[in-house]
Amino acid sequence: MMEEGTEAVRQANDAFYLAFEKRDVAQMEALWRPDDNIICIHPGWLPRMGQKQVRDGWEAIFNHVTRVAFSVCVMEITIVGDFARAVCREHIVSSHGEATTIATHLFERHDGRWLLVHRHSSPLLTDADPAADNALPMLQGSP
Amino acid sequence: MMEEGTEAVRQANDAFYLAFEKRDVAQMEALWRPDDNIICIHPGWLPRMGQKQVRDGWEAIFNHVTRVAFSVCVMEITIVGDFARAVCREHIVSSHGEATTIATHLFERHDGRWLLVHRHSSPLLTDADPAADNALPMLQGSP
Repeated sequence: MMEEGTEAVRQANDAFYLAFEKRDVAQMEALWRPDDNIICIHPGWLPRMGQKQVRDGWEAIFNHVTRVAFSVCVMEITIVGDFARAVCREHIVSSHGEATTIATHLFERHDGRWLLVHRHSSPLLTDADPAADNALPMLQGSP
Repeated sequence: MMEEGTEAVRQANDAFYLAFEKRDVAQMEALWRPDDNIICIHPGWLPRMGQKQVRDGWEAIFNHVTRVAFSVCVMEITIVGDFARAVCREHIVSSHGEATTIATHLFERHDGRWLLVHRHSSPLLTDADPAADNALPMLQGSP
């Protein structure tokens, strides 16, 4: 049985994907800690730092897709005090195509509520099997 | 002037790249918290979880490059209590080619020493200008 704390983080994590699917900037922004020490790294992008840059990134994305749906596997959740990490495998189907990505989410608990402080999402390269000796995409240049 | 705490995290971060450049598994492993709650996400790979998977990943990489050198820009360091986050832009030149990557590093302080607990590194797509409206590589399928 899952411990109660983990379930609360999972719900915060789920809320992120719901806001993404709704393409709702206000709903998305409400899930993040409201300050300038948040960071969001979209796949391939430079890090967006602080409330304004993070929000503008979501606006840019939400304005350019007409639909987006996620299938998400939460691979791991760790909680230490008021900090939590979730690692997710994401499959995105959108009006712009499909992608499989790996995401690191960091949350902090404020007044009993888990807020996002960091997201790092990046493409999973399906031909990069970590068990294979030749799985070294990192050393073969940026795609 | 940089506060002393930040400098200690920077040194731990530097030590990571030195161990990587030396391709020394033991030196690398000594920089990580020695337990099964560590995660390392190499560019394009599935997350490697726990001490054994993380070490095996480094062995696979170090066995397949004959030289590797980093130019690293530390973009951000945040410390909250015994937790620290560093975000780095990495340029890698190796016997297998060149790549520019963005990394999230998470550290925990144990007995006064900052140990890695999480690394997520992924390719920076140079044509993905986050200021551009059409910078949506995440929605255009995995490279």
